[in-house]
Amino acid sequence: MYRGKALKLLKSLSIEVGDRVKIEKAGRVYEGILMPRTELGDPNHFVVKLASGYNVGIRISKGVKISKVEGGKMPRLGLPPLEIKRDPAKPDVTIMGTGGTVACRVDYRTGAVYPAFTAQEIYSAVPELANLANIKVVEVCNVFSENMTPQLWVRIGRAIARELNAGADGVVVAHGTDTMGYTAAALSFMLKDLFRPVVLVGSQRSSDRPSSDAALNLIGAVAVAGKSDIAEVCVVMHGSTEDDFCLIHRGTKVRKCHTSRRDTFQTINDIPLGMVRGTELKLFREDYNRRKPKGRVKVEGKFEPRVALLKVTPGMPSSVIRGVLKAGDKGIVLEGTGLGHVPESLFDGIKLAVSRGVPVVMTSQCLWGRVDMKVYSTGRDLLRLGVIPGGDMLPEVAWAKLMWSLGKTKDLEEVSELMQENLAGEITPRSRPDVFLKPTFALTP
Amino acid sequence: MYRGKALKLLKSLSIEVGDRVKIEKAGRVYEGILMPRTELGDPNHFVVKLASGYNVGIRISKGVKISKVEGGKMPRLGLPPLEIKRDPAKPDVTIMGTGGTVACRVDYRTGAVYPAFTAQEIYSAVPELANLANIKVVEVCNVFSENMTPQLWVRIGRAIARELNAGADGVVVAHGTDTMGYTAAALSFMLKDLFRPVVLVGSQRSSDRPSSDAALNLIGAVAVAGKSDIAEVCVVMHGSTEDDFCLIHRGTKVRKCHTSRRDTFQTINDIPLGMVRGTELKLFREDYNRRKPKGRVKVEGKFEPRVALLKVTPGMPSSVIRGVLKAGDKGIVLEGTGLGHVPESLFDGIKLAVSRGVPVVMTSQCLWGRVDMKVYSTGRDLLRLGVIPGGDMLPEVAWAKLMWSLGKTKDLEEVSELMQENLAGEITPRSRPDVFLKPTFALTP
Repeated sequence: MYRGKALKLLKSLSIEVGDRVKIEKAGRVYEGILMPRTELGDPNHFVVKLASGYNVGIRISKGVKISKVEGGKMPRLGLPPLEIKRDPAKPDVTIMGTGGTVACRVDYRTGAVYPAFTAQEIYSAVPELANLANIKVVEVCNVFSENMTPQLWVRIGRAIARELNAGADGVVVAHGTDTMGYTAAALSFMLKDLFRPVVLVGSQRSSDRPSSDAALNLIGAVAVAGKSDIAEVCVVMHGSTEDDFCLIHRGTKVRKCHTSRRDTFQTINDIPLGMVRGTELKLFREDYNRRKPKGRVKVEGKFEPRVALLKVTPGMPSSVIRGVLKAGDKGIVLEGTGLGHVPESLFDGIKLAVSRGVPVVMTSQCLWGRVDMKVYSTGRDLLRLGVIPGGDMLPEVAWAKLMWSLGKTKDLEEVSELMQENLAGEITPRSRPDVFLKPTFALTP
Repeated sequence: MYRGKALKLLKSLSIEVGDRVKIEKAGRVYEGILMPRTELGDPNHFVVKLASGYNVGIRISKGVKISKVEGGKMPRLGLPPLEIKRDPAKPDVTIMGTGGTVACRVDYRTGAVYPAFTAQEIYSAVPELANLANIKVVEVCNVFSENMTPQLWVRIGRAIARELNAGADGVVVAHGTDTMGYTAAALSFMLKDLFRPVVLVGSQRSSDRPSSDAALNLIGAVAVAGKSDIAEVCVVMHGSTEDDFCLIHRGTKVRKCHTSRRDTFQTINDIPLGMVRGTELKLFREDYNRRKPKGRVKVEGKFEPRVALLKVTPGMPSSVIRGVLKAGDKGIVLEGTGLGHVPESLFDGIKLAVSRGVPVVMTSQCLWGRVDMKVYSTGRDLLRLGVIPGGDMLPEVAWAKLMWSLGKTKDLEEVSELMQENLAGEITPRSRPDVFLKPTFALTP
């Protein structure tokens, strides 16, 4: 909240947090919603959420003028709340809130945008959904996705199993984008005998911004959850920077690849499962787990929280691994260089870890391609030391998988087998030559 | 070397390491060059380098047959060594060996392929070079690139300065691909007043393989070093999977993005400087440092070796940072999530680091896009804690830069300024909307 000088000024003008204000300073005019300050905020700035959705801080110095444009109110939703009856012809889809920014309600305390969290609010915000499914809403937690934890993964997993086992045709998990890939991977390993779709969805732009991707993503996600026969954990997000289609990514092969673009999520080392244009599904492949009319999801929700993900750098000393062991970590995933290499200076640390029964898994910081430790002598030496090759798993997926594997067994041999087995599409049996990145700028050859 | 059973068998058949052999086992036939074993190798396997360039290990069990096809010899080079006189009309280019696999000589001890390391050998291997430049060869070190260290960066940097200051028109650094991006970034910060091109080049496939990219890359690199007016550190490597052109990447914007593809190097968050088709250069942009007829390169070669690069994961505890501080690290680069976030559980560790004068720099594990810590409250809290935003720097480039910055000053304010200033093209002033990855598989919309 505002303090000191700022508070005094606001009080004198009857301006409250949430009001639309105009601030003039040094010849520039800022118009937007007056945001509150966090506890760490200093009292000498106003923070305003601009129409662009971004917040600016304006220092309260000489010559700053502030005036109220209109009083604060909840953001306008597309339609007034409707009374909608359950239609037995439509699938039942549960939308699960975790604190992501998929739809529509501005939290004035933080400036973040939270899901509209009654079914009515959701229908109002995205009226298309009423034609697609009977929506039920469940709030599981309410954290920014950067504050997601392995404990919360399990809470989400249990809630998903409850919904599906109680008859929901599919579940949509609204999740912040920052760590969506991690949660998708964790759920993929955790949910056993999955017989219906579980779809993670989020939004790169607040839904109070004109360029928001929230509605298209949510419609796509509900379509996949309600209509598709994909009984897997997947991520449905924009497939391009246009508001034209979403891609359906397998939960163990997807990564947030751009800090701000709407098409930030990309399938790495494989092709996506398919796409959604409006509510129209098109699948690219046949090799996925199919929806079954009946079933019972089991949750294998034990994760060893102490697993390190170490990115290998030139000259990295063994003391890094010694530190990690000393801190009590029970597993280590290395992001090696190239085909899965580390400097020789790390060999002693790796030996020590393995001798203590701590599994060391190799992935590549290249991200694309496959670890192959038989090509060069460094790789062969590492295999000899007991390093477990991670195939073409993404480093963060290998990390979540190792936490889950160590939740099942501490036996080094068994962990090694689990890590090298393809459990949820995380390791492709053969690399496709046509999956890599292509620069998007025009090369005129 | 072979021991025990294997050695006995080889001796009895007069087969030596380096001979071309045929091995039959369980109905399969392997033909290739018999490779030596490393010290860690067990004596019960033969290792053979196949025509594909890859090594296979074949266990010596019952029924294994080995026979000699032909005696070992040095790999055949394109032409017999030529006596070539210096042509004053051609540029003088120094090729510097570091142990990378750019050209042509197989090391039978390790199975690795080392540069042909006299000028004559180079001309013989890649005859096109004789038309392009007067080649001088200098061997600076001889390590696999995964064993490259900050100490060796400095040795390479000094050798480059020596050559350029003595009159070389350009320098080509032959370097293994695993850590080429790190070395390119380090050299970019280290070499001040650079007035001629410095080109790193390598090869993804051994030059004894038919599909080797070594020759095209080396020709492209020598063309850029000898003919171009780019007075910067750059990387020249295949631009496609065809043997048709190389891209010229700025040394601070380039990353190895695939474990095995020839077009593994990609410019991230910017467009490349240009391309080379054969020896023909085409530049894509105007904003680069130009070659000058005269100059003097200075080496600012002090690197603080104790800098941690930490990839942020869900639930990451502050104890990770406490461990790093305890180990004596003097700087920390975080690979945060999204726009530059970390879990709240890491705040205490960050506070502690900053309070001890240890700079904490934020980059994004998305790799593409730009850290923007003013959008969400987590980012604003982190700025308030003293975290230094890394713009659109690659995490590993920020890591090399922080080592270098801490070599210049330990003052937190000065380090913060250096890290946020664009010193060598590592921070683009504005993000181009057209640079991102595009999946290479065909999307039929």
